[in-house]
Amino acid sequence: MSKGITGRNEDYSQWYNELVSKADLAEHSAVRGCMVIKPYGYAIWEKMQAALDQMFKDTGHSNAYFPLFIPKSFFSKEASHVEGFATECAVVTHYRLKNDGNGQIIVDEEAKLEEELIVRPTSETIIWNTYKGWIQSYRDLPILVNQWANVVRWEMRTRLFLRTAEFLWQEGHTAHETKEEAVEETERMLEVYATFAEHWMALPVIRGKKTETERFAGALDTYCIEALMQDGKALQAGTSHFLGQNFAKAFDVKFTSKEGKLDYVWATSWGVSTRLMGALIMAHSDDAGLVLPPKLAPIQVVIVPIYKTTEESQQIGALADEWIADLKAKGISVKYDDRDTQRPGFKFAEWELKGVPVRVAVGARDLQNCTVELARRDTQTKETVNRQGLSERIVALLDDIQENIYKKALSYRNEHITEVNSYEEFKRVLEGKGGFIAAHWDGTPETEKRVKEETKATIRCIPLDNKQEAGTCIFTGKPSAQRVLFAKAY
Amino acid sequence: MSKGITGRNEDYSQWYNELVSKADLAEHSAVRGCMVIKPYGYAIWEKMQAALDQMFKDTGHSNAYFPLFIPKSFFSKEASHVEGFATECAVVTHYRLKNDGNGQIIVDEEAKLEEELIVRPTSETIIWNTYKGWIQSYRDLPILVNQWANVVRWEMRTRLFLRTAEFLWQEGHTAHETKEEAVEETERMLEVYATFAEHWMALPVIRGKKTETERFAGALDTYCIEALMQDGKALQAGTSHFLGQNFAKAFDVKFTSKEGKLDYVWATSWGVSTRLMGALIMAHSDDAGLVLPPKLAPIQVVIVPIYKTTEESQQIGALADEWIADLKAKGISVKYDDRDTQRPGFKFAEWELKGVPVRVAVGARDLQNCTVELARRDTQTKETVNRQGLSERIVALLDDIQENIYKKALSYRNEHITEVNSYEEFKRVLEGKGGFIAAHWDGTPETEKRVKEETKATIRCIPLDNKQEAGTCIFTGKPSAQRVLFAKAY
Ligand SMILES: [Zn+2]
Ligand SMILES: [Zn+2]
Repeated sequence: MSKGITGRNEDYSQWYNELVSKADLAEHSAVRGCMVIKPYGYAIWEKMQAALDQMFKDTGHSNAYFPLFIPKSFFSKEASHVEGFATECAVVTHYRLKNDGNGQIIVDEEAKLEEELIVRPTSETIIWNTYKGWIQSYRDLPILVNQWANVVRWEMRTRLFLRTAEFLWQEGHTAHETKEEAVEETERMLEVYATFAEHWMALPVIRGKKTETERFAGALDTYCIEALMQDGKALQAGTSHFLGQNFAKAFDVKFTSKEGKLDYVWATSWGVSTRLMGALIMAHSDDAGLVLPPKLAPIQVVIVPIYKTTEESQQIGALADEWIADLKAKGISVKYDDRDTQRPGFKFAEWELKGVPVRVAVGARDLQNCTVELARRDTQTKETVNRQGLSERIVALLDDIQENIYKKALSYRNEHITEVNSYEEFKRVLEGKGGFIAAHWDGTPETEKRVKEETKATIRCIPLDNKQEAGTCIFTGKPSAQRVLFAKAY
Repeated sequence: MSKGITGRNEDYSQWYNELVSKADLAEHSAVRGCMVIKPYGYAIWEKMQAALDQMFKDTGHSNAYFPLFIPKSFFSKEASHVEGFATECAVVTHYRLKNDGNGQIIVDEEAKLEEELIVRPTSETIIWNTYKGWIQSYRDLPILVNQWANVVRWEMRTRLFLRTAEFLWQEGHTAHETKEEAVEETERMLEVYATFAEHWMALPVIRGKKTETERFAGALDTYCIEALMQDGKALQAGTSHFLGQNFAKAFDVKFTSKEGKLDYVWATSWGVSTRLMGALIMAHSDDAGLVLPPKLAPIQVVIVPIYKTTEESQQIGALADEWIADLKAKGISVKYDDRDTQRPGFKFAEWELKGVPVRVAVGARDLQNCTVELARRDTQTKETVNRQGLSERIVALLDDIQENIYKKALSYRNEHITEVNSYEEFKRVLEGKGGFIAAHWDGTPETEKRVKEETKATIRCIPLDNKQEAGTCIFTGKPSAQRVLFAKAY
């Protein structure tokens, strides 16, 4: 197995692309901007989905499914919403092809739609149009619904998982009686995302609010979790929006309260996407390949037999059968790699590339000594241990790896939050060390825009429970009440 | 809870529509032909998905994801395939909207795609174009991949679940070294579908092959499972296609065999869709509402307390807590319906309408007598039983209901397979009793077409292991070697 991945320090972007390709996670399709998620990549996404879906259900949500297409007129009803998405919409205009008589397949102009359909870039409009029929009274509230779906946002420059024209995601859409309830829901789901990122992805995140400029099109408030990648760039890993009554007003969704009063419904929406795959890959992996947190690894343990004789092969096979049964009973996924077409060294490199957290190797000497060689992917260390109590040891090891990966990412992240007090310092840190930069800002979109134009850094968020601290804006020198987090971002 | 569902005998079609609506399964969306699958309907679909997905994985398949869009040129590569789907394709022609300056949102004509994109009606073409990059040698085979996705087939006349422009499905796409392997896979997946239909949906099916006329566009052979609905019409509940080398040739996918020979790859594809929801609803339900097989019921048991005093309410609540814990530990989903806004009679009717298999009611007298009232949805019978060993009793009851529903559907189906020996008899049975009609057919598409035009009956399938029996075609009088199954169908 020749890996030949470019080193992270050499070319981080190239390292990422090669890793996604060589670890069989995804590839570009023949359709501009659309990706193919390969089985190994999809298996990770399925584990993410399962964990998130359970968390959504545990917080009272149900899944449903809404149409792929949105009539153009719906899409236009919420002004800032359409403004946010209009320039990146795939538009369906016809519903039939025909043979042109010369053997060419062409669009049938007689099958032109009266009203164009937009392939959903997000579903607020079609969902709120539907909710109108579901909501009359406070008894119909809250509505706590989630959808797993594909969405399309036409992108000119795409990168696998990080930015693609079509991507997979979930979008929660909830409806509430009061503003307070809606805000609570927005915050609850942000916390669900943060918990998922930290406990499952081993990804430390900063919980915060977006500035007005960076808000979701149609939201009154956008909460987000922000993570840091190994190249010092930030990645928004999930957003939760407080939509106020904007969509209820656009679609005329009112309810009768307990007191008999008619009022517009309060809304939230929240989503994470296959972008999380990009975050997962970039946060932990190294120059030898993927590093996966055990909780999301499709294969948690690989067993590689090393033998010369058929007898050795059979002896190892018999031992492996036992371990596999033990591990499976403990809910651990195991692969026994007994391919006779590849040498052990090739297999070691392949499973390293694919990020399998624990490798068990067993050779002739191990048979004699009642030992195995245990290797952990995160630290790339190995030790020879007695095979007594192997499965318990592996369970503990997987826990330890999950924790270690998180701690490593956390200390990297914490080391890369830098307070600066001048624009010069800001630019120096941004171009050098990178990471989050905590700086005073005068609170205006104008300053935010100027800084972005000059440095490509954006305000990633205003952390929740941010320390209030008087200061002066690094750009304008105007007064500021708190620092905000800037960074270059994916 | 006033149900007011039209009776099946009165108007079967109306009964179905009302049931889908009143049981909160799905509704028409504002987008022509596209449905909204509501949370309760989607919960059933999720149970179906989970069971099928496990069966696919148990037979060695992995999930992956391919683009929503297919370039028109790909779509045109397999001649009979494009012929089959061209007249029902949603076509994306533009990738941007803009404001026309007068506040109207219009399609931006400057953002016209060079090549139109088809919203996938099925994914053979984009997948085989992808497989070309995955397959070089026999070592890369077999490829056993499944995709859960939405697809679009433009339909003018739609019915919720049964025929919609957008629907959800899974599509398996496999690639093999030999014809034999591909045929085996085709048959294996048909058997997976049949097992799922029978064991999970409690739906007896006939395994068969389609005639040439009814084959999938691009297949050499289409296997199917056919079920019978309560109005005597057949419903195709799943198909598995042997594609031969058609798509490999269209996309030039060759592999080097063990012997170093270059050959085209052999293919299968197979799918089931949200249409199964329609089959599930129609096969078992009655004039009081849904009847769900326990294995697919989102709520398997509902507990309804009947009390007058707070003390009674508390006593029943304490008992219910215990039962719920017991049942959940046994993997059974339970709902405790303690709404104080509705009376017990309303609740009984509502859960009946929604097809919850077992209802437990507990009142003041039950408290005294250590009893509960157990009602089963399938037979609409109830009995008062001692609450000793309640959860074990419920487990057994659920098994019994699952079996009973299946047996009932099976005897209905078996009673509705009629052998006929003349065209007169054929028409009489078709218009009267309905169901499957086993008749001799001369094997020609012409006769099949004429019969369809005259009677609306199609050949549903040639059953696997069909009895060979010399006879004469009921329509032409020409010789026939076997009977085939005709029916009117959904
Ligand atoms: Zn943030
Ligand atoms: Zn059939």
